Amino acid sequence: MPSKNTVKFIKSLQLKKFRKQENSFFVEGNKNVTELLRSDFIVTHLLYTSKFENLQTNLVGAFGGEKYEVSPQFLASLGSFVSNDSALAVAKIKENKPISVEPGELVLALDDINDPGNLGTILRIGDWYGIKKMIFSRHTADFYNPKVLHASMGSFTRMAFVYTDLSLFIQESHVMVYGAFLHGENIHETVLKNEGILLMGKESTGISKELEGLVTQKLTIPAFGAAESLNVAIATAVICDNFRRYGLI
Amino acid sequence: MPSKNTVKFIKSLQLKKFRKQENSFFVEGNKNVTELLRSDFIVTHLLYTSKFENLQTNLVGAFGGEKYEVSPQFLASLGSFVSNDSALAVAKIKENKPISVEPGELVLALDDINDPGNLGTILRIGDWYGIKKMIFSRHTADFYNPKVLHASMGSFTRMAFVYTDLSLFIQESHVMVYGAFLHGENIHETVLKNEGILLMGKESTGISKELEGLVTQKLTIPAFGAAESLNVAIATAVICDNFRRYGLI
Repeated sequence: MPSKNTVKFIKSLQLKKFRKQENSFFVEGNKNVTELLRSDFIVTHLLYTSKFENLQTNLVGAFGGEKYEVSPQFLASLGSFVSNDSALAVAKIKENKPISVEPGELVLALDDINDPGNLGTILRIGDWYGIKKMIFSRHTADFYNPKVLHASMGSFTRMAFVYTDLSLFIQESHVMVYGAFLHGENIHETVLKNEGILLMGKESTGISKELEGLVTQKLTIPAFGAAESLNVAIATAVICDNFRRYGLI
Repeated sequence: MPSKNTVKFIKSLQLKKFRKQENSFFVEGNKNVTELLRSDFIVTHLLYTSKFENLQTNLVGAFGGEKYEVSPQFLASLGSFVSNDSALAVAKIKENKPISVEPGELVLALDDINDPGNLGTILRIGDWYGIKKMIFSRHTADFYNPKVLHASMGSFTRMAFVYTDLSLFIQESHVMVYGAFLHGENIHETVLKNEGILLMGKESTGISKELEGLVTQKLTIPAFGAAESLNVAIATAVICDNFRRYGLI
């Protein structure tokens, strides 16, 4: 069994303040823990049930950090899941490294996406569509929030990202900037080059005025019915799908 | 103030059993209540804050059923929202009328979509893409679940739907049946006719074996990265968007 201090440490990571202080985060569930163990993250603790060990014998065996077989009840008491019959792992937060947009590359920039579920879903969508880098404004939800990681379904392990001043980042990139608006060019009638920055705005208010001025091409998903808007994760998927019709560069 | 019995009645509608027994449901929040009052649903009760009355004076004034001005705290105590500073309304459940697929019409069929959030999001997506009818298998989440209605953002008022035996429905429709699979024809390379049934499968297991045999065209959203799958609501949006590139018939 892990010590009282370890238990306290893991529980504290539910809050951003302690994640930052400890430079650590946790992930839960079979899919996410498995992907984490296979990634380049530095994993420090692994807590698992006998069921998980049966499923992932090699991964558990090869793990060199602190590890404990525990009950599902104990796992659930540590993390954010109501129940967890597989595993929980603690890993080190990655350094906030600068990112640049390479020629022939499409990156995603998020302007204050606040909802952790939306951010996690966007990571999964980006990973599906071959997006390898994301740029987050400073008020975007925390990447290491358990809800973000859970919704990403393992895709968080494959995404390079940076929190930065989006306005400065865009200005210094000197590439095409596509932005999603309710009154832009019909995306079905636009030839899209798979290169540059795709900017998605905040759930309620969209792309901020400041960033709007930096957008070189405004895009709109055409509506055929009466709904007023689409959720930002849904819109991201539809726009990425339209970009990828033209293939990867 | 509403009577104790009315309060008890409204609270009971959080559960499907009582919604069925009372043939009634409730919706919460400014957007959903406003859309409900403007729809053809029979609304029996309206509970609203002074803030909502200021915003929607005409709608509140014109409402002929039981109505009460109440506090936000009282509203939150009745419904499913943590806080609600606008309104809650009770309406009659619509009869489960048969639906048919008309020539030149694309309808959506859902095979056991269990998650209320997914169902509500799919209603909103369908409404955006001009889908007017949906067919639900008997184990699809309850349309009148507060989480479904909330996620639909008012689109529930514009969707005709029926819960039925999907297999029988499809067999009797004699139209094209498109189905979403992980290994079908690349949707970017398929010419899609905006006519027939688009079938979407359960979150974890996809379209059931029984229904798979009735699909005339299997479709796949191409992946460009490493994510294993897309959420069913996301996939529905992307597929609808691909259909609508060819316009409405």
